[in-house]
Amino acid sequence: MRAENRMGYQTVIYKNRPQIVASACAVGPREGKGPLGEQFDLVANDADFGQESYEQAEAALLREACRICLSKAGRGEKSIEAMLGGDLLNQIMASSLAARSLKVPFLGLYGACSTMAESLLVGGMLCDGGYASPVLCTAGSHYATAERQYRFPLEYACQRTPAAQWTVTGAGAVILALPDASEKKAQACLARGCMGRVVDMGISDANNMGAAMAPAAAATLCAYFDDTKDDPKQFDRIITGDLGMVGSELLLEWTEKLGHPLPREKMMDCGLTIFDPGQDSHAGGSGCGCAASVLCAHILPKLASGEWRRVLFMATGALLSPTTSQQGETIPGIAHAVVIEGVQG
Amino acid sequence: MRAENRMGYQTVIYKNRPQIVASACAVGPREGKGPLGEQFDLVANDADFGQESYEQAEAALLREACRICLSKAGRGEKSIEAMLGGDLLNQIMASSLAARSLKVPFLGLYGACSTMAESLLVGGMLCDGGYASPVLCTAGSHYATAERQYRFPLEYACQRTPAAQWTVTGAGAVILALPDASEKKAQACLARGCMGRVVDMGISDANNMGAAMAPAAAATLCAYFDDTKDDPKQFDRIITGDLGMVGSELLLEWTEKLGHPLPREKMMDCGLTIFDPGQDSHAGGSGCGCAASVLCAHILPKLASGEWRRVLFMATGALLSPTTSQQGETIPGIAHAVVIEGVQG
Repeated sequence: MRAENRMGYQTVIYKNRPQIVASACAVGPREGKGPLGEQFDLVANDADFGQESYEQAEAALLREACRICLSKAGRGEKSIEAMLGGDLLNQIMASSLAARSLKVPFLGLYGACSTMAESLLVGGMLCDGGYASPVLCTAGSHYATAERQYRFPLEYACQRTPAAQWTVTGAGAVILALPDASEKKAQACLARGCMGRVVDMGISDANNMGAAMAPAAAATLCAYFDDTKDDPKQFDRIITGDLGMVGSELLLEWTEKLGHPLPREKMMDCGLTIFDPGQDSHAGGSGCGCAASVLCAHILPKLASGEWRRVLFMATGALLSPTTSQQGETIPGIAHAVVIEGVQG
Repeated sequence: MRAENRMGYQTVIYKNRPQIVASACAVGPREGKGPLGEQFDLVANDADFGQESYEQAEAALLREACRICLSKAGRGEKSIEAMLGGDLLNQIMASSLAARSLKVPFLGLYGACSTMAESLLVGGMLCDGGYASPVLCTAGSHYATAERQYRFPLEYACQRTPAAQWTVTGAGAVILALPDASEKKAQACLARGCMGRVVDMGISDANNMGAAMAPAAAATLCAYFDDTKDDPKQFDRIITGDLGMVGSELLLEWTEKLGHPLPREKMMDCGLTIFDPGQDSHAGGSGCGCAASVLCAHILPKLASGEWRRVLFMATGALLSPTTSQQGETIPGIAHAVVIEGVQG
């Protein structure tokens, strides 16, 4: 017997439709020069954001995104009943440091680049179930800290492979609240969520994350469509986090193979949206901050304005560790999804 | 206005009292030689557990704990609607690899050594709210991987400071299910949870985690007693995860200072329970696997037998990263708690 708010094997239903009452993002200078430049709440002048280390800059960006989000919602920190979030730093240090300064109840998550969707998915259940409202859902990443940790420090000036993606310097924050707890008009609401499974098709090239994550993305999408009997055409967009150029093509191949062909014109990848091809970011943007900042800057405003009415937002994570990669392990992937709907009459 | 299932600022109520239908743990040889040796479900003969690396051994121990737990519950993997868990490895690789082999919907958590409590806390809400049942809550750690990652590889044969703690090689797994979804007699049930805040009192010595975590532990306990008006005397035990010798004393000082003196005879620390003083583990055991394995081997059986009727189980985490520590950051701490009650008539 399935749990009450469960539909099929992986999908959950948010009966009370937690509302997105505010969202905000803060990004680095490179992201600010990209096609979404005007839409970010804050664009840092320098990648170090005035801090002594890139790690501290990453924490500061996340903190700023949270503060702007709270201010947009007209709420003080003390009103937040739970903050959920994570990032790519070892021990999710950026999130821990941001949570330290906010002083709110904090639940640390790790889902690699799937974190923004995991945060909304779990935060949505906590809110919908009446355990916490409002809830602050966050995620962030930084190009310089990710390169140093996963590949090589920038100072080595290593050449990038064509399939490599560019970790976004950015952070996003979203406040969820139950309808009656919120006075402000909501931007959108959560209708459903889909919890991903770990999928590993044997990719071991840490410079080709798109290929490692595509099978997990396909698995979550197919599970969602199997569970709900929804049709992809019922969505204005099916949005992936950072599959990039390589992974996005592979996703279409995998889903077709699994019996759920996706209409190409409905697909959007945050990693292919945040940078202009002229910015030389190879296969596209990546990192927890990619999906998080594109969600806040681009997707939620389109739902708030009514241009879009229903999207599936799915962020994908490559669960790779430099240690296990050096030991010859392949890269497990995961993808979590939420269905976000507009709230216009 | 507080969310419906919220009591005070940090405490949540599990109205449906999710039941602990099974639990299991797997530990390393050193833990097997300790005072709880007979109570563990599986004691590995070697710290490498037959694997090619300690990281793979850590993943294998976690996988074994899950498999034994599923078998005790008489359930197949396919029945699990959500697995929640984390560990101390960068990118929580042990949990990701265990989740890969189990193929169930997976939510990765990071709370350092507080992970077992975070897993029960969040898993409890997902189960209680009808989003997932049964839920598999897990955590694990390994001495050799933690030393290599946070301090020095064992091969360096570094000397340990007196306040240093010994990371437990072990993993625990607990299955939660809503009362009506379970046929087997439950061991115990979850009644309440308390979400911790990040607290940092400026400790920067990575060899004195107990001191770094004690203020966070005190903050969560005081929040719980403020929120609920419970009396510490209403518990058979108030159990901390791994404060060790130094941190346990500091906790009593901090809580007294904050107006909630704790009765010494009610206190128990998993880090002071798992090893015998003769095992030369200095200030006691630590790691996510410490609280997780003592919970499964020692605490839950006492609740199942009726020897204890009500315990507060709180695991504490030092949210430290070697990178930020080297940059001069202090160590933020966090503590999450759940109230576990017996189910005898």
